Amino acid sequence: MPTQSIDPKTGTKLADPIIDSAASEVEEVVTRSAAAFIDWSEVAAKERASVLEQIATALDSNVDELAKLADQETALGVARLVGEVARTTFQLRLFASELKKGELLKEDLDEKIEGAPPQGRPQLRRSWVALGPVAVFGASNFPFAFGELGGDTASALAAGCTVVVKEHPAHPQLAQRVIELSQNAIVAAGFSKDILLSVRGFESGSTLVKHPLISACGFTGSQVAGKALFNLAVARENPIPFYGELGSINPVFVTENAAKNRGSEIASGFVGSFTLGAGQFCTKPSLILVPAASDFEAEALKAIDPLSFSTLLTPEIQAKFLKDVALVNSKTGVKTLLAPKPKADGFGVSIGLMSVSVEDFLANLHEISHECFGPVALVINYQNEAQLTRVAAQLDGALVTTFQAEVTQDQELLKQLVKIAKHRAGRLVLNGWPTGVAVTRAQHHGGPYPASTNVLHTSVGSYSMMRYLRPISYQDFPNELI
Amino acid sequence: MPTQSIDPKTGTKLADPIIDSAASEVEEVVTRSAAAFIDWSEVAAKERASVLEQIATALDSNVDELAKLADQETALGVARLVGEVARTTFQLRLFASELKKGELLKEDLDEKIEGAPPQGRPQLRRSWVALGPVAVFGASNFPFAFGELGGDTASALAAGCTVVVKEHPAHPQLAQRVIELSQNAIVAAGFSKDILLSVRGFESGSTLVKHPLISACGFTGSQVAGKALFNLAVARENPIPFYGELGSINPVFVTENAAKNRGSEIASGFVGSFTLGAGQFCTKPSLILVPAASDFEAEALKAIDPLSFSTLLTPEIQAKFLKDVALVNSKTGVKTLLAPKPKADGFGVSIGLMSVSVEDFLANLHEISHECFGPVALVINYQNEAQLTRVAAQLDGALVTTFQAEVTQDQELLKQLVKIAKHRAGRLVLNGWPTGVAVTRAQHHGGPYPASTNVLHTSVGSYSMMRYLRPISYQDFPNELI
Repeated sequence: MPTQSIDPKTGTKLADPIIDSAASEVEEVVTRSAAAFIDWSEVAAKERASVLEQIATALDSNVDELAKLADQETALGVARLVGEVARTTFQLRLFASELKKGELLKEDLDEKIEGAPPQGRPQLRRSWVALGPVAVFGASNFPFAFGELGGDTASALAAGCTVVVKEHPAHPQLAQRVIELSQNAIVAAGFSKDILLSVRGFESGSTLVKHPLISACGFTGSQVAGKALFNLAVARENPIPFYGELGSINPVFVTENAAKNRGSEIASGFVGSFTLGAGQFCTKPSLILVPAASDFEAEALKAIDPLSFSTLLTPEIQAKFLKDVALVNSKTGVKTLLAPKPKADGFGVSIGLMSVSVEDFLANLHEISHECFGPVALVINYQNEAQLTRVAAQLDGALVTTFQAEVTQDQELLKQLVKIAKHRAGRLVLNGWPTGVAVTRAQHHGGPYPASTNVLHTSVGSYSMMRYLRPISYQDFPNELI
Repeated sequence: MPTQSIDPKTGTKLADPIIDSAASEVEEVVTRSAAAFIDWSEVAAKERASVLEQIATALDSNVDELAKLADQETALGVARLVGEVARTTFQLRLFASELKKGELLKEDLDEKIEGAPPQGRPQLRRSWVALGPVAVFGASNFPFAFGELGGDTASALAAGCTVVVKEHPAHPQLAQRVIELSQNAIVAAGFSKDILLSVRGFESGSTLVKHPLISACGFTGSQVAGKALFNLAVARENPIPFYGELGSINPVFVTENAAKNRGSEIASGFVGSFTLGAGQFCTKPSLILVPAASDFEAEALKAIDPLSFSTLLTPEIQAKFLKDVALVNSKTGVKTLLAPKPKADGFGVSIGLMSVSVEDFLANLHEISHECFGPVALVINYQNEAQLTRVAAQLDGALVTTFQAEVTQDQELLKQLVKIAKHRAGRLVLNGWPTGVAVTRAQHHGGPYPASTNVLHTSVGSYSMMRYLRPISYQDFPNELI
């Protein structure tokens, strides 16, 4: 099945279909990637840094063309997409800067101690070795920052791995252009373009994951697709690490004090966060717990324009959005405050809002609390704050959990909630919003399943590079041999 | 099926059989472990350190009783087992010392930067959170150091996880005594004994891995058992990390110069290493590549007493040893230099040695190059040193790869071999032997599959604690709330 570039605003075709990679082509690409790995993994960290910087420069230099192309295929808006290119090149430069600093790749050296074990020991030097060719599956909701040249590709190249990207079918023209610009920059820097190759098509994706020469996978996308590929990775004769960032429901807890003091501000902040990027953020807050006695619902409705449509990325996302909303609506006790509607042409939908009591929410927990891409959210009305800890303890793993609270007055409640929520989320946000993931060293973007398939690793920030390196110990080796 | 304590030297029963844990008992144990986790994971690192030290003291204080009991059930020898208790308590104290130093658990703090992303960011603090109750499957070949209170248990407790141990059926009395002593020390230190619980029986093991409240598994054992449990861990509705250390063939490369200068010493060192602990080390060197023109085989045979028997741990290991040796012997070109024989009573076997050419070895690579517990090894005779890199590039993942070489004369060859071998092993040893794994920070005990199921993590040394902690980021949290 060929890949078709489509304008989500109208549903019309943007270019001729692009033929998927044949099995023989995938085989050739992986073989070339594995051959290129031998040299690339030996390149000094500072030289790898320079290549990342030159890719960043190439993308920055073409930002207008790239943002325009991306907007045609994603309808995410040129201004937002220009900003996303900046985030993507900032990320490439962050890894370059980490490679130059060298702290993350520092070695441990234990000098020889004479005598019998356990005190006595040989000299041991713990260093790092890149894993091998990495398969990267980017996302469509961040076509740059989590796309073909997003965090997975950047961190794998930084680690000294070569990368085979599975191009995303929701932005096929952009995918090819980003890869082309990056390969040109790599070649201009004096390296083989084989360190960054790509394939197209659904079948090519599973072929990559199963290929004996692929050593790890980075994935950002849906729980269904991520779990299916994870299953392939662990069923191999030699299982490989599969770093899947799958998204989650990202609950928000609003205390009584916060609702009283800042109810209107919290309501509009929440609406802004769950509708950002047409509600297609993996950090989208899907659930918010508010006091039943508050004006939250009315304030939230005031912040929503019921006539405005946001354009979703694909017809599949639009169909799933409408189906998921209908499912939640069908549950006992769920009240529709605002029913989302599909737009006549393209993949547009209007904003939706629903509400439910704590009891009815918990009665349908596993059917209601699934991630749903698109501009919709569920308000959970609680009777008393004791219900907050009760709900917190029953929620699935999340990328991020948010608290709106008054730090001094709510201190004890917050401590209780944090004690529970920290075992269920990768990031905790206080009096902010979960959307917006800073690209920095102290970031952690991951979390207990289903937020991610590998609970120890982050897919954003400096440490994401460490997913593609493993430790190795050299025993009694002189320096000149390492 | 009850668990039976047996004397491997005679095959006779040592005590009444112990009844396996019922399913309801496993359920109760895991529930108690999860309940205890809530408090234990909040205990300050220095207090956890103190508990580990008190467990170490309890084991040291009972070393004679423990070594005697272990020798009855394993026949590994009292002197070696006394040393292994010391290694085990050294290990407990290493984690305690790391917890007190705090470097491994250090936080990253990124201060807030005003302005728009990507430069602008909130305050982020990257910290650590313990995973939850951990299931530990110890080994029988190191009944202390990799046993019920071995590295997996010690590192998980250090991380702030609670532990449910699956007791090893090859030393059932020892398992119960070690758990009992440790629980007494934990209670004396003022904590609940529920932070360290245990279950018995084959079924209990898979029940543990599948239990929703178990958050990770540490395993040391055979490739078959490890892979089977790994498959259960990744097939769960919420997959969990499975840290399996499965063992490997651990090749040794001897250069022409080394063979010429130190042939006799290398041969006797090799025999000492592959027969250590009756050849039941996961780091046992099973293959050695030597110049065909050397006297290696004759020198190795001189170092072996063909009439001495070593006692294997279980009848299953003895049977598999004899079967594996027969399989290798049946391959074209394999020459039996010394045929191992079973002892009339108990689980004893004599030492075996086989040899083969590089061509015949490579022709049967996947059937010959499996780990085989027991005192046997395969000598591969090479015609020229170019064959060394050819073999290195075709070997499976290993825990450790060893080089016997002359550093100055062999520098180029060594560099070539290291460049290949570092992608296939977790540790590289120069002019030493792979058996003996120092317990220290710069150690790495793991490696590409089948050496381990999780290529990034070590099961020995300070960093093994990090397997049971995941990062978490606190966004804009004041210190008093964390």
